[in-house]
Amino acid sequence: MKQLIAEKLDQTTAILNEFDVDVWLTFVRETSLMPDPALELIAGLDFTWQSAFLLARDGRRLAIVGNFDVDNLQNLGLYDEVIGYEKGIRQHLRDALTRLNPQTIAINTSESDVAADGLTHGLYRALLAHLQETPFADRLVSAERIIAAARGRKTATEVARVRQAVATTEQLFAEVGQFVRPGMTQREIAAFVHNRVDDLGLGYAWPKPFNPIVTCGPDSAVGHAAPGDVPLQKGHTLHLDLGVKQNEYCSDLQRMWYVLDDGETAPPPEAQRAFDVVYGAIKSGEGALRPGVPGWQVDKAARDFIAANGYPEYMHAFGHLLGRTAHDGATVLGPQWERYAGICNLPVEAGNIFTLELHVVVPNRGIMSLEEDVLVTETGVEYLGAPQTELWTIGDF
Amino acid sequence: MKQLIAEKLDQTTAILNEFDVDVWLTFVRETSLMPDPALELIAGLDFTWQSAFLLARDGRRLAIVGNFDVDNLQNLGLYDEVIGYEKGIRQHLRDALTRLNPQTIAINTSESDVAADGLTHGLYRALLAHLQETPFADRLVSAERIIAAARGRKTATEVARVRQAVATTEQLFAEVGQFVRPGMTQREIAAFVHNRVDDLGLGYAWPKPFNPIVTCGPDSAVGHAAPGDVPLQKGHTLHLDLGVKQNEYCSDLQRMWYVLDDGETAPPPEAQRAFDVVYGAIKSGEGALRPGVPGWQVDKAARDFIAANGYPEYMHAFGHLLGRTAHDGATVLGPQWERYAGICNLPVEAGNIFTLELHVVVPNRGIMSLEEDVLVTETGVEYLGAPQTELWTIGDF
Repeated sequence: MKQLIAEKLDQTTAILNEFDVDVWLTFVRETSLMPDPALELIAGLDFTWQSAFLLARDGRRLAIVGNFDVDNLQNLGLYDEVIGYEKGIRQHLRDALTRLNPQTIAINTSESDVAADGLTHGLYRALLAHLQETPFADRLVSAERIIAAARGRKTATEVARVRQAVATTEQLFAEVGQFVRPGMTQREIAAFVHNRVDDLGLGYAWPKPFNPIVTCGPDSAVGHAAPGDVPLQKGHTLHLDLGVKQNEYCSDLQRMWYVLDDGETAPPPEAQRAFDVVYGAIKSGEGALRPGVPGWQVDKAARDFIAANGYPEYMHAFGHLLGRTAHDGATVLGPQWERYAGICNLPVEAGNIFTLELHVVVPNRGIMSLEEDVLVTETGVEYLGAPQTELWTIGDF
Repeated sequence: MKQLIAEKLDQTTAILNEFDVDVWLTFVRETSLMPDPALELIAGLDFTWQSAFLLARDGRRLAIVGNFDVDNLQNLGLYDEVIGYEKGIRQHLRDALTRLNPQTIAINTSESDVAADGLTHGLYRALLAHLQETPFADRLVSAERIIAAARGRKTATEVARVRQAVATTEQLFAEVGQFVRPGMTQREIAAFVHNRVDDLGLGYAWPKPFNPIVTCGPDSAVGHAAPGDVPLQKGHTLHLDLGVKQNEYCSDLQRMWYVLDDGETAPPPEAQRAFDVVYGAIKSGEGALRPGVPGWQVDKAARDFIAANGYPEYMHAFGHLLGRTAHDGATVLGPQWERYAGICNLPVEAGNIFTLELHVVVPNRGIMSLEEDVLVTETGVEYLGAPQTELWTIGDF
């Protein structure tokens, strides 16, 4: 943990200078009940009473925390100064700001990026009250660009961890391919994966009841549904959406199988074509993905490919950031809809890890949905695993 | 889960009428990254896009969620209407409010109660933008009293669950008493507890690295510290602070042992007296604890008892609410310090479950710290387990 946080803190100093911000202030309380997503980047511990983390552009790092939390943060060894308090934080916070005298103070608030919006409205008002009659109340700005950069630009350590989680997930998919037989229900297939994930001591990239999502045939719901009693049948597609959390970092992959019907030796043309078009759309999006491009433009490349091939458009985004969490904040590779406002216009950056994902429906067969995890580099795109290039089949029983 | 949420929703309707509020609006997004503590009371699921839960005083329950989350919420079967959307929530939210036409709309914001402060500042601003040029923007009030009541007044189901978690924790303490020997380190004792908790398939009331807290002798840190390499020695105290999470509900108890020195058959007078005074302070606080009393008054009874017996005051609150989480929101039995402002003046209510806890230091021996979990009833206080009434000893090896 310490190594990663040290890397993130060093990155942050550079980012503050890049965005010309004097101090980044993360202000939290009772983080086990109400976590600020930014806190895990810069401290990785829980804090009970109101706590302030002040990172200055000259590299100084101060923290003000309740007395009982001082030792833990000091043991982390990454803050120059850890100030403890007993009865209240106000005077300590004002004193620290007076010493640093920042002209701009970035706080964790954002209308569009949940990962940069850790400051609750009540705590925001408490902060304003603490800063009353100081010059600092008028110097608050949003930390959204800082957090998006710190969270979004993965370090080498972070990339290695996601790569490992992807490799583990690919192994699990291979085991699923060996395990499944026609007649098994979604629930049985999910239980197999759960046993393996639990045996391996891994975590889940999103809650276990919905991870993996298992879709078989035309009658199972598309979306965030829990696996149910729908059995896998010949002539249908099988789809898994699985993400593990390994060593604090996540994977998020979707894979497709087709269950051969009696007498079939290959998927029928409409299933094969659907796979080819989904695969082609991912390749189209991949082709548009590079530093500096706004997210919606990458989505558009995939979306246009789907439309050009005569399929209805997918009603979600083409991709999201991936890292400590499955939806790892900020930039979305999504269309310019109300719900992606502000985050689909953000530019792709080198060091971002994105999912690339979409689906079409094959009438009477089921959905066809793929998802890959890729790293954006200075020059292009690097897959963090082996993308699925062929529709896998289940058959010969 | 469904039964509990149904109970809480029924409670909420009565609470809205009690506080004369027309609609309680919980507004969230990406709750797996940024949970609103109120959401588990009324829905118990995660939601990805901006989602609104509208509970009206006449009992109507509406929810507006992203399309992919509709099925899960409908399957819960507790909302009259679940409205899905594809591109944006704004028009659906305005339409729903127009239909309900509330004169007061309570939102999840509170300066002092973290459990009632789930609305982030960015999402608050997004909500204001959604309501622009409607009459509803001016009808927003804080839901803090509603949430404090809904969370704080435990139903019979909830009390039974905490009671079970307490019983389990008492059993674990009994096992610790059998297991420990002088020479063992804090880390070894914690590992013993972790193995047992994991074997039993239980969760932790707060993060595992700090649960249990194990304090032995005069040289271990007081507070939220992780167990380290300090060995348990004869003539020292041993203290554990342990909370398990069983069936979604928590315990939070502290227990004390004294390690007999060579030739001793009982704790030395200064250790015994410290125990008696801590025990007496808890009894004093218990005596002051009843519905209607402000939290600080309960704390004062315990604090005064400590002072009257010549010990330095403890620099924390005497008690906090307990339930789904170890610090279960709102009312604190704490002194009128800045950091308890607003929450130490709240009145105790029947149905509240509180911890009662405090410590003193025994020079050269270690800390003496007890914590009990109690239910407030209409007429007084009921212990949810067997309080520790005697200082336990470890010896005869």
